[in-house]
Amino acid sequence: MISQETIVALATPSGAGAIAVIRLSGKDAIHIAGSVFQSVSKKDLAQQKTHTIHLGHIVADSKTYDQVLVSLFKGPNSYTGENVVEISCHGSTFIQQQIIQLLLRKGAKMAQAGEFTLRAFLNGKLDLSQAEAVADLIASDNEASHQIAMQQMRGGFSNEIAKLREELLNFASLIELELDFAEEDVEFADRSAFNDLLSRIEFVLKRLIDSFAVGNVIKNGIPVAIVGEPNVGKSTLLNALLNEERAIVSDIAGTTRDTIEDELVIEGIGFRFIDTAGIRETKDVVESIGIQKTFEKIEQAQVVLYLVDSLQLTVDSLKSLKVETEKIKNMFPLKPIVVVANKADLLTEKEITNLQEQLTTYNLQLITISAKQKLGIDTLKETLLSFVNTGALRNNETIVTNTRHYDSLLKALEEVQKVKWGLDSGISSDLMAIDIRQALFYFGEITGEVTNDELLGNIFANFCIGK
Amino acid sequence: MISQETIVALATPSGAGAIAVIRLSGKDAIHIAGSVFQSVSKKDLAQQKTHTIHLGHIVADSKTYDQVLVSLFKGPNSYTGENVVEISCHGSTFIQQQIIQLLLRKGAKMAQAGEFTLRAFLNGKLDLSQAEAVADLIASDNEASHQIAMQQMRGGFSNEIAKLREELLNFASLIELELDFAEEDVEFADRSAFNDLLSRIEFVLKRLIDSFAVGNVIKNGIPVAIVGEPNVGKSTLLNALLNEERAIVSDIAGTTRDTIEDELVIEGIGFRFIDTAGIRETKDVVESIGIQKTFEKIEQAQVVLYLVDSLQLTVDSLKSLKVETEKIKNMFPLKPIVVVANKADLLTEKEITNLQEQLTTYNLQLITISAKQKLGIDTLKETLLSFVNTGALRNNETIVTNTRHYDSLLKALEEVQKVKWGLDSGISSDLMAIDIRQALFYFGEITGEVTNDELLGNIFANFCIGK
Repeated sequence: MISQETIVALATPSGAGAIAVIRLSGKDAIHIAGSVFQSVSKKDLAQQKTHTIHLGHIVADSKTYDQVLVSLFKGPNSYTGENVVEISCHGSTFIQQQIIQLLLRKGAKMAQAGEFTLRAFLNGKLDLSQAEAVADLIASDNEASHQIAMQQMRGGFSNEIAKLREELLNFASLIELELDFAEEDVEFADRSAFNDLLSRIEFVLKRLIDSFAVGNVIKNGIPVAIVGEPNVGKSTLLNALLNEERAIVSDIAGTTRDTIEDELVIEGIGFRFIDTAGIRETKDVVESIGIQKTFEKIEQAQVVLYLVDSLQLTVDSLKSLKVETEKIKNMFPLKPIVVVANKADLLTEKEITNLQEQLTTYNLQLITISAKQKLGIDTLKETLLSFVNTGALRNNETIVTNTRHYDSLLKALEEVQKVKWGLDSGISSDLMAIDIRQALFYFGEITGEVTNDELLGNIFANFCIGK
Repeated sequence: MISQETIVALATPSGAGAIAVIRLSGKDAIHIAGSVFQSVSKKDLAQQKTHTIHLGHIVADSKTYDQVLVSLFKGPNSYTGENVVEISCHGSTFIQQQIIQLLLRKGAKMAQAGEFTLRAFLNGKLDLSQAEAVADLIASDNEASHQIAMQQMRGGFSNEIAKLREELLNFASLIELELDFAEEDVEFADRSAFNDLLSRIEFVLKRLIDSFAVGNVIKNGIPVAIVGEPNVGKSTLLNALLNEERAIVSDIAGTTRDTIEDELVIEGIGFRFIDTAGIRETKDVVESIGIQKTFEKIEQAQVVLYLVDSLQLTVDSLKSLKVETEKIKNMFPLKPIVVVANKADLLTEKEITNLQEQLTTYNLQLITISAKQKLGIDTLKETLLSFVNTGALRNNETIVTNTRHYDSLLKALEEVQKVKWGLDSGISSDLMAIDIRQALFYFGEITGEVTNDELLGNIFANFCIGK
């Protein structure tokens, strides 16, 4: 299945830098590199030890292309498990292209996206979930996603799955052995120990499946809608949270007609803030489009921050606050709403206490802040974090971030539960064996013991070329 | 003068790719890298041989940052001549930053632009003109500039200068020796041999200085203005030359109001084509701004292509062609104008001969093409090349591309000519010695034997960080 061809690609980002690295992998990698490389000390590349670096020039047809360093990795001691040569050349795009074209002329072929990592997987250097973690690692842009990708790449997740799979496989063998002796009605597999195992597997699977909620949040961030009357300081709040001047701040009510999105990372969790046009009653057509958008954004959001101006909180406005938050609650009953009272630095302590009491009767949580003075912003951040179960992250537990893994885990759980139900109701070994095999299939899908070309194609197409 | 600190920088282009390379250089480079690197085979980095590669993890405070490959170069066998460590990590910007920040915390300091190459120069790994060639090499974007930079980096230019300098230095010593014996009126330096040497130096300097014209063209390209009546196919010609659909092509006369620049490399020489709005008489304000721009562009251009539509060449239009090309000739007497007759595939041979004769009487060169059919484009390219003296390039001679070198060469030539004049007119050895020293000074400026902080600062500030 592995192509015998030697592949080549630029491994470093495109564009100009001090240096660029061109990577070759395949049976003939050293031969091809050697055919265009002249070592300054006249060494023959093929005779050199693995994991050594050699200074020289890329020369072909008596033309010198560049002075380079060549790093040698002899298979299986390489990333792909094949012979790998990395050519570190000067970082001009022109030189990079010239050298790659030269290597293509010498018999290498251009690597597909992810082909180096695909070969590493096919050569058993890493399993499928580890290979996927390589892409996640490269894409990681915050602490949490980086940490999870690292753990997965180092095999944390694979080990957990592999262990369960092995134990299940043991029982499967015993039960299948029973089938061979079906006439004699023997039980090689201890049913009570098997039941224990199934419960344990069920527990682990459920934990992993639950972790996807956190994993998904870490990978994609939590959308938070900021709503409220125009001119209460939504944009200012967004700026205070983001600590920069991104949204347009203006004193004209209803200025924020287009929603502005921005992301803030709090303790490794990304929050995507969505500034909305508010939901007050209006006859202005443009404004009413904004209000419709607001409801759309609330639907997408996981948390709603309802911002009010502390100085405008009359008895009437509190009533309309109640009406409007109830509108949101009616449409989205499970969505948490936090009332954020802005300009609270201008209130007395008594006024704040009163407001607090009033909102409690409305079943609404209150946070007082001053977006302008940047007061209460930390409390607000903590409140936001409280909506995410970050326990798993803090305890360094395995977190599932990949939809493909999540799907396989769900299907595996379903099969395991079928097996368990079958065991409880005493179904025949042959039927149980089928369900166990199916569960094992889904485990195998995660780590890549079970795979097919289409699946691999999908996974590695998302990689960058050169990895 | 060399800082004892260990410097660190990203050596590959910023942005995400499969891998990124972080470079450390300095006395403590191996120590600093070793303090955060855990080899998979528990090796101590400091005990490893130079030019070897080691797989492991970047770990600090029990947090694993990434799986990396570490390349070891022990001074003086490295680019900078110091200990150098290159960390090849996964290409996420987040990871790059995390590792660089970690290395900074461990005692490295952020490298200035060009600081690695500056250290290489200060440690005698390359001379100044070679160091400058490194920057040129990274910036090279075509065959010719790449070739010249390679030659210069490999010491071609330096050797030529160094040889002349050495010979001159020999004579300088002899003449200065004469000063010690001034009372005795001896001549250690053979005046006739010295005269020969000076003539040879003068010849080489003049050749190098002349080569700057070509060098400059290679580095910056030749601007070519394409002018002519609207709707004769200027944009189509540009596209035919560039072989792609860059300019807006339309049938409406006067469409091309904004000038579009694009570059074409012919035999390693870059030509920058400037599409202009033409110079016909007009009352349209927008159009007349275009015409003014056309004249500005012609001023900048080194060659003018005057495009006409073969099918529109009546007796009247030929007269107006004469008038308009004369306008250009009057404003820019030395600028070559080539009349390019487009749509010539629709003319008979006789018509072409007539046109040719007519234009010869106007003292204008004619090339017949069909931009649409891509006929005559190669002849046009050859004609363009004929305006560049590419002999030096083809003969692989040293070509000066650097303004600083050009300046030093001009000054050196002036001093050499002074010495020569002094020799002819028999001035005293002590005065001649001063001029020789001055010439030697300018030679030394090129290769960096003579230098100062300001000069070095200027040169290396133009480098990218990480080189």
